[in-house]
Amino acid sequence: MSGSKTNAGHFFEDFAVGQVFEHATPRTITAGDVALYTGLYGPRFAVQSSDEFARRIGYARAPVDDLIVFHVVFGKTVPDISRNAIANLGYAECRLLAAVYPGDTLSATSEVIGVRESSNRASGVVWVRTSGRNQRDETVLEYVRWVMVRKRDNGAPAPEPVVPTLAERVDPATLGAAVPPLDVANYDLELAGQRHRWGDYAPGEKIDHVDAMTLEEAEHQIATRLYQNTAKVHFNLHEQAQGQFKRRLVYGGVVMSLARALSFNGLANAFHVAAINAGRHVAPCFAGDTVYAWSEALETAEIAGRRDIGALRARLTAVKNRPCADFPLRKEGGDYAEGVILDLDLWLVLPR
Amino acid sequence: MSGSKTNAGHFFEDFAVGQVFEHATPRTITAGDVALYTGLYGPRFAVQSSDEFARRIGYARAPVDDLIVFHVVFGKTVPDISRNAIANLGYAECRLLAAVYPGDTLSATSEVIGVRESSNRASGVVWVRTSGRNQRDETVLEYVRWVMVRKRDNGAPAPEPVVPTLAERVDPATLGAAVPPLDVANYDLELAGQRHRWGDYAPGEKIDHVDAMTLEEAEHQIATRLYQNTAKVHFNLHEQAQGQFKRRLVYGGVVMSLARALSFNGLANAFHVAAINAGRHVAPCFAGDTVYAWSEALETAEIAGRRDIGALRARLTAVKNRPCADFPLRKEGGDYAEGVILDLDLWLVLPR
Amino acid sequence: MSGSKTNAGHFFEDFAVGQVFEHATPRTITAGDVALYTGLYGPRFAVQSSDEFARRIGYARAPVDDLIVFHVVFGKTVPDISRNAIANLGYAECRLLAAVYPGDTLSATSEVIGVRESSNRASGVVWVRTSGRNQRDETVLEYVRWVMVRKRDNGAPAPEPVVPTLAERVDPATLGAAVPPLDVANYDLELAGQRHRWGDYAPGEKIDHVDAMTLEEAEHQIATRLYQNTAKVHFNLHEQAQGQFKRRLVYGGVVMSLARALSFNGLANAFHVAAINAGRHVAPCFAGDTVYAWSEALETAEIAGRRDIGALRARLTAVKNRPCADFPLRKEGGDYAEGVILDLDLWLVLPR
Repeated sequence: MSGSKTNAGHFFEDFAVGQVFEHATPRTITAGDVALYTGLYGPRFAVQSSDEFARRIGYARAPVDDLIVFHVVFGKTVPDISRNAIANLGYAECRLLAAVYPGDTLSATSEVIGVRESSNRASGVVWVRTSGRNQRDETVLEYVRWVMVRKRDNGAPAPEPVVPTLAERVDPATLGAAVPPLDVANYDLELAGQRHRWGDYAPGEKIDHVDAMTLEEAEHQIATRLYQNTAKVHFNLHEQAQGQFKRRLVYGGVVMSLARALSFNGLANAFHVAAINAGRHVAPCFAGDTVYAWSEALETAEIAGRRDIGALRARLTAVKNRPCADFPLRKEGGDYAEGVILDLDLWLVLPR
Repeated sequence: MSGSKTNAGHFFEDFAVGQVFEHATPRTITAGDVALYTGLYGPRFAVQSSDEFARRIGYARAPVDDLIVFHVVFGKTVPDISRNAIANLGYAECRLLAAVYPGDTLSATSEVIGVRESSNRASGVVWVRTSGRNQRDETVLEYVRWVMVRKRDNGAPAPEPVVPTLAERVDPATLGAAVPPLDVANYDLELAGQRHRWGDYAPGEKIDHVDAMTLEEAEHQIATRLYQNTAKVHFNLHEQAQGQFKRRLVYGGVVMSLARALSFNGLANAFHVAAINAGRHVAPCFAGDTVYAWSEALETAEIAGRRDIGALRARLTAVKNRPCADFPLRKEGGDYAEGVILDLDLWLVLPR
Repeated sequence: MSGSKTNAGHFFEDFAVGQVFEHATPRTITAGDVALYTGLYGPRFAVQSSDEFARRIGYARAPVDDLIVFHVVFGKTVPDISRNAIANLGYAECRLLAAVYPGDTLSATSEVIGVRESSNRASGVVWVRTSGRNQRDETVLEYVRWVMVRKRDNGAPAPEPVVPTLAERVDPATLGAAVPPLDVANYDLELAGQRHRWGDYAPGEKIDHVDAMTLEEAEHQIATRLYQNTAKVHFNLHEQAQGQFKRRLVYGGVVMSLARALSFNGLANAFHVAAINAGRHVAPCFAGDTVYAWSEALETAEIAGRRDIGALRARLTAVKNRPCADFPLRKEGGDYAEGVILDLDLWLVLPR
């Protein structure tokens, strides 16, 4: 019915392994994006908040939050990859590879690396490896995600299934490229908000981030549009009211950013998300939900050639409408516990 | 009752043809305004989104969205012109005359060019020609609008009616001043999001923009304040609850910007609004309404002296709570169809 | 229950006179913060709105709104001072000491100057003197505030009470440091929006600011996070729903900024808040409330050595869900009148 010039997005049968998408709308990141990000989530990491703090330790100025980079690159992929997605299934092998500063312009490319039709033949899973580049054509971000995409025609033939093998975690030897050599002596722990360095965290340690935020429709819509992410489930109540949830779905990236901002309370010196080893949006989140978060330290690792920083692998769990003093994650039997909405396996970088 | 230092705005009998208002509060446009505009509407036109894209084709950097310029200039006029308006009746002869960049400072002047008392003697229509200027005193925007304004005293004598003659459409020969000579070879259609150039659109063609956005109170209030537009119908629920609509009215400019942003899907290369030939807010819009949009190509025109760009006249229609696959506009008999809220006749500029 | 690395904030018994807190997270102020501030409150003071206007009278460019400086510095103090506060009782001796421009980085320090246990022994009042500094270590803001803070352990011994003596008002001789010598001849009253200068206001004069704004949850949350203020009463509906008010409390600073922005209508040339002599959040404010405001001129004062500017002491009263044509403040008997939410005693600076 729609005019032929309208982009209706791709359906499962449009994807083939090896296909490459040069996504539309390059985007210059500005101090305005940073301010809005601060207003939407309230992050307090000193490196990203203060040009002075960042300069004193070796950055050119305050880099933008790693998740701004993630969301902006992700947003560009939506019209080509997930406009007709049923679900965003997961992330892996995500690495932040270069610091991004206000004034940098990001664009994004994706390559299809896997396809598998669903058994119901109405949809299929598509794996893409996406990379974000700056104006100097440096890769600033790379990640794999997989989504379940609707078929246009259920009768279309199934492609040969290709399921990529993905690393269980990013190799810590490859981390840290986005962090310049730090003058750790100038890293002021008092201004940073916590005295604990990389060496103070031990595997198994659990941290309740205590704080919580209740989400509003205007907030998640503004956030999602800021990333030029057009997925209609986040914006169109008129249509969503007829659907499964009867309301707009919050973009999963909003929950990621909220949980990350909340994690400052306990992880104030984990100033950089170097990698997302795995990520799963466990349950939907809606306006009115209150997001809590907690972290578990999973592993620590030295970074080859770096005496200034170390890597901490942590599982960041976001939970809705339920405080995290008892660290909710899974029920007996292995299903996710009531309220869990995000399960994110991260490599964080802290000063040593 | 209010102190004498309070501006209660002008009433119909305060306006006389020839009167000039130098409006208050010049405003420097910044990257912050651009980010907030992106967050509020989600535009994806590459020229305004990327400094790199803009520079490669001939701009100094990414210009700000044309409707930011329109809303900021419009906002300045409200305290003098429409504080006591009953309705904003229409726009004509609106032209964008120079690119505006972050850092530019805009101010606005209006001249009264028409007055006509209403037959009920309680109000009257005022026509003003408004121009927005930058810090170099260059006119960046010009438009005529007419509003119905309340009388302070119904017994005040009616002025001699003066109704200006307005052009049915802006002469395309006068378009394009805000676009530098473009290096069209560097205009990357893939990054811009669509392959269709100026020559690919033909009069009569209809485009359903498919996407839609549900409006929230916080969104339209933030938008309207960003333009320093103080019209109280948009902000004061305590008073509006006693009025005709029982709630706050969304500033019509918010609907214009939403519809324009939605139009990217189908008109991705129509990167510049060069003129508003006519504009009408057909029905009020409220928080909770979902805005859809569609366009009809009305006319194409070459622009004198320009081989790089061409003009496309398009009617952009915004419709609430109703998809636009059937292109709703008017009912039999000529009245606007159910749901139509905005009827905007534009000259758009596309690369050739 | 929470991990030992979580900051649970300080309790009354943790404070002692003489203690100094170097607060976390220095913050670079940007044009993005200014845009968001404009979107959230709609201020129209020409000096802060236009680089050109500001330069013509003697500023380097448009300084940021004085209350942005106040809120950002205040926000930094929350995790250390008022995370466990029951109530924010008052402000005094607040002075803005240097203009702040986009690009400046602010940090904050507080010294405890008073403590007094409450008679119920469950809490106590803590007085702190806070100062905000820029990247050149210049003090840009100084103020005293006192808060009622919960005790961790009601049995903890009471400290020797120390109640600081605070000035009833800031000495006008000390005002104006944040305003460069102005070229008043270039101060364009028409662009500024009002013809009244310092000399046109007289003690006793009351001004109804007429306009009003209805607050939304998303707006106050975005504002409060922008200042990195983490007080959970503003954000956590899940917890607040169990509390006294059943909903989120609006950060008092939001009401201050709204009232200040509304005061433009009648005080358009009062471009600078030089001091807060006293401030009291009289009653809580919630989303859905409509904020009105009015001012009373209390006193005028010359500023030593300045022929360009003068000081006007004014009481700015914010009132919810009630117009201010009758200037509501106190009932017979002295209690605050119904609807009054903010009582702010300010030194404003105007051109002479």
